Amino acid sequence: MESCVPPGFRFHPTEEELVGYYLKRKISSLKIDLDVIADIDLYKMEPWDIQGYDSQTEWYFFSHKDRKYPTGTRTNRATAAGFWKATGRDKAVLSKNKIIGMRKTLVFYGGRAPNGRKSDWIIHEYRLQTFQNATPQVPN
Amino acid sequence: MESCVPPGFRFHPTEEELVGYYLKRKISSLKIDLDVIADIDLYKMEPWDIQGYDSQTEWYFFSHKDRKYPTGTRTNRATAAGFWKATGRDKAVLSKNKIIGMRKTLVFYGGRAPNGRKSDWIIHEYRLQTFQNATPQVPN
Repeated sequence: MESCVPPGFRFHPTEEELVGYYLKRKISSLKIDLDVIADIDLYKMEPWDIQGYDSQTEWYFFSHKDRKYPTGTRTNRATAAGFWKATGRDKAVLSKNKIIGMRKTLVFYGGRAPNGRKSDWIIHEYRLQTFQNATPQVPN
Repeated sequence: MESCVPPGFRFHPTEEELVGYYLKRKISSLKIDLDVIADIDLYKMEPWDIQGYDSQTEWYFFSHKDRKYPTGTRTNRATAAGFWKATGRDKAVLSKNKIIGMRKTLVFYGGRAPNGRKSDWIIHEYRLQTFQNATPQVPN
């Protein structure tokens, strides 16, 4: 997989590259230059079982959102051992002064709400912000 | 120059890659995969005039050592506006538990010794450590 990356280069994408290149092309099924971001099913895995590319401290993935109910817009963020809980406000990702995506920060808690034990695991979840998916968001 | 580097990749080499790949191949005139490290004449430039690749805060260069006297081993580290002065101890660069190079840290001082004004500019100077050049070093 690293065959075309010269020595000394590491995957340290900007948020603009993550959203404007990787996520956008992934969603559009367009070719990605070097397929460094793996697909996982985040809610079928515990954070300590996730393995990523080329780093000891942070990794990048694609994962589908899992809806709580087939007809609803609420997201099911539970794993077998705990759950991911949003924290803080969503942050805009900009490209040339335009909003191209949003970043949500989630913290992993062991156990079940409302009695979870907060952990040091954090996810930044990026979504595209386009006319197509700019529907009102239900806080979760 | 970046044509073969996929989006999101940045030049963040380890010291082992700097010495064991880039410096070693440069000295041996072997092909370097992607020629991201420019040649400069460090002592003909002031630190604020140096421009490098793909970073706002640090850059990588090759530069020949300038001997103070044609027959000596002492190095002339003066520029027009100041001089580079070694600080601390040299540090070994390891690869598979073997010393492949040494790193010297230098700080830029404006003016002329011994009255220089210390600045925030720092250089890490790497040299290969091989049988060929493992001659005794004269402190400078």
